[in-house]
Amino acid sequence: MHRINKGKIETKSKVPVRNANDLSLAYSPGVAEPCKEIFEDPQTVYDYTVKGNMVGVVSDGTAVLGLGNIGPEAAMPVMEGKAVLFKSFAGVDAFPICLNTNDVNTIVETVKLMEPTFGGINLEDIAAPRCFEIEERLKKEMNIPVFHDDQHGTAIVTAAGLLNALKLSGKSMAEIKVVVNGAGAAGIAIIKLLMSMGCKHFILCDSKGAIYEGRPFGMNNLKHEMALVTNLEKLEGSLEEVIKGTDVFVGVSVAGALTKQMLESMNNDPIIFAMANPVPEIMPEEAKDAGASVIGTGRSDFPNQVNNVLAFPGIFRGALDVRATHINEEMKVAAVKAIAELVGEEDLHTDYVIPAPFDPRVAPAVAKSVAIAAMETGVARRKVNPDDVEKRTKELTIIDGDNK
Amino acid sequence: MHRINKGKIETKSKVPVRNANDLSLAYSPGVAEPCKEIFEDPQTVYDYTVKGNMVGVVSDGTAVLGLGNIGPEAAMPVMEGKAVLFKSFAGVDAFPICLNTNDVNTIVETVKLMEPTFGGINLEDIAAPRCFEIEERLKKEMNIPVFHDDQHGTAIVTAAGLLNALKLSGKSMAEIKVVVNGAGAAGIAIIKLLMSMGCKHFILCDSKGAIYEGRPFGMNNLKHEMALVTNLEKLEGSLEEVIKGTDVFVGVSVAGALTKQMLESMNNDPIIFAMANPVPEIMPEEAKDAGASVIGTGRSDFPNQVNNVLAFPGIFRGALDVRATHINEEMKVAAVKAIAELVGEEDLHTDYVIPAPFDPRVAPAVAKSVAIAAMETGVARRKVNPDDVEKRTKELTIIDGDNK
Repeated sequence: MHRINKGKIETKSKVPVRNANDLSLAYSPGVAEPCKEIFEDPQTVYDYTVKGNMVGVVSDGTAVLGLGNIGPEAAMPVMEGKAVLFKSFAGVDAFPICLNTNDVNTIVETVKLMEPTFGGINLEDIAAPRCFEIEERLKKEMNIPVFHDDQHGTAIVTAAGLLNALKLSGKSMAEIKVVVNGAGAAGIAIIKLLMSMGCKHFILCDSKGAIYEGRPFGMNNLKHEMALVTNLEKLEGSLEEVIKGTDVFVGVSVAGALTKQMLESMNNDPIIFAMANPVPEIMPEEAKDAGASVIGTGRSDFPNQVNNVLAFPGIFRGALDVRATHINEEMKVAAVKAIAELVGEEDLHTDYVIPAPFDPRVAPAVAKSVAIAAMETGVARRKVNPDDVEKRTKELTIIDGDNK
Repeated sequence: MHRINKGKIETKSKVPVRNANDLSLAYSPGVAEPCKEIFEDPQTVYDYTVKGNMVGVVSDGTAVLGLGNIGPEAAMPVMEGKAVLFKSFAGVDAFPICLNTNDVNTIVETVKLMEPTFGGINLEDIAAPRCFEIEERLKKEMNIPVFHDDQHGTAIVTAAGLLNALKLSGKSMAEIKVVVNGAGAAGIAIIKLLMSMGCKHFILCDSKGAIYEGRPFGMNNLKHEMALVTNLEKLEGSLEEVIKGTDVFVGVSVAGALTKQMLESMNNDPIIFAMANPVPEIMPEEAKDAGASVIGTGRSDFPNQVNNVLAFPGIFRGALDVRATHINEEMKVAAVKAIAELVGEEDLHTDYVIPAPFDPRVAPAVAKSVAIAAMETGVARRKVNPDDVEKRTKELTIIDGDNK
């Protein structure tokens, strides 16, 4: 499919240029009019150009899928695929920008220079810890939303699933103890998002076990920062040792990292998100056997699939529609709640805490909620009717609405 | 039109993603396969991604149309328009990259970093003299074609018109004396291209008159360089003074720069290309009255329109189809001849030395000739059948084939 089509996207004209009259409107001399208007009032670039609906999908190819650092050329098929999803799920135009550098400063400066073209930036498949600094700096230094999907997309969908799973187990965000296995981009983002939603007790593990303040091995700046706000009891030891008596396991690590024995040592009705790809930290059947109340994975062939596609199309749709300058925590939490709420009380079930990826209600609901949150928190540059955002997103999506 | 459509292009998916099965092919896990293949063999990026058909239309917005330095946001409508033309005339995907900097080095480094995404770079509306250095450096430092259309597009179409005009006047390239009025990007490119086609005698004028070696005023590096290879008699004085006894006037300057009196002082059957926009250096009727044999302008409402759209779509089509590393002089000259030859001997007339912009034969003929020249001069990375290039270009063009 990738070969026959020679890539998966094309740039298509929205206007016909079939004859001299068309040409004089779309190009010289007619095109001078919008140019002059934008020169007079720079914000009209949103009215006259693609900027307001165009997201740059930026990667350096250092952390592509499970393939690792395969470089910017080899990352192109993924970035094109991402562009396809943006368009199919929420009518967002997106364009792959694969950069031939790994240098943080160079990536930051390069992306900043492209701000005139793009209404938003989706960072993708950039290795930790560089991805954090790149995102942080771009968020500060640009006036358009910047969103590292590998961090926040996964975090948002996981949080939505957890929110619903807690309803089933009757536990609250504030009281649960959460073990996160995997101290990369997604793991850290999950902790930060859950914290902003009221979750308090975390233990973050890497391949060397629990991370605690002052751990004398395998630390870096980020792990140090996380150690200051997690694992307040300073538990030491392997995942096997520290998972005892916790309520939630979040795996963004490797196949088989969670054994039945470990799961059995958790509190009653443990909630498991085992998102290693393609083979999860524990297989769903095994987890259920060992007492898991809810098990989510990254896979489409099991229930409760944690799929980023539930989040990023609607988030950017909402952010673009209000011309947001940023995607802030409130907008992310709004997305979490919108996704979670689509699973109605009557349908809520251990095998259904997350809507299906092709549920056509998702992107419209997320877009609406994100637009509202942006307007309420002062990052929107224009006011819109949230119902219009929802309606328009529905019209723009081209998915079938099932999971065939 | 620009406002209703919110810009003139969109990124469109070439593959459906309507359900989970589609998703698993277009995105994870299926997308890993082309990624791995490109990682193993980087050249396959041309097989599996848009790169091989994707041109970056790069501008800093410093010399936009006749509007000047209006900045990168205000340049967006033009760059989108250019993308529309690329697609409509030759099926080339193109994407606007408007950069928020005027710094030569920054532009060069930024464009280089985007090489994984693009199969070619079209520089557009970048002010002289920076445009020369940017193009020169990018040509040296990138492995994909880099082409500054404001220079070479205009030069190629002008040269094609001149080639045919000379057939009518019976003069030869080697003997004619050419005055070029306007020492900007286009003027200098025209001289260089005509030189490579055997033209020997030039006088380059700026607003201060003829440029000669050692002129003590209004010089810069480029004018100095040009002074070394033009105006070998070191004529001094205004355009009015130095135009006497020349055969060809090429204007890339300002309205009214050429008077009837000046034209009357030229040799018999003078050839005039008066390309100031929107008002030419001399109006066609006036030029004819004063004895011009051929007069071309930039305007669609007069005969012999010098329109870049005759050149760049076919040039990039041909260059991309053979995966050329560069667009060299031979390829430009091939384009000149292809354009000129479309005006058959029986049709050749003072009012028809250049094909019409919407002549559907142009892009296919240019693409074919450029592909041949690329293969013959060793800049092609793959061999193709030139007839296939022509045929495919015909299929890809969506123009009506008239000038309505």
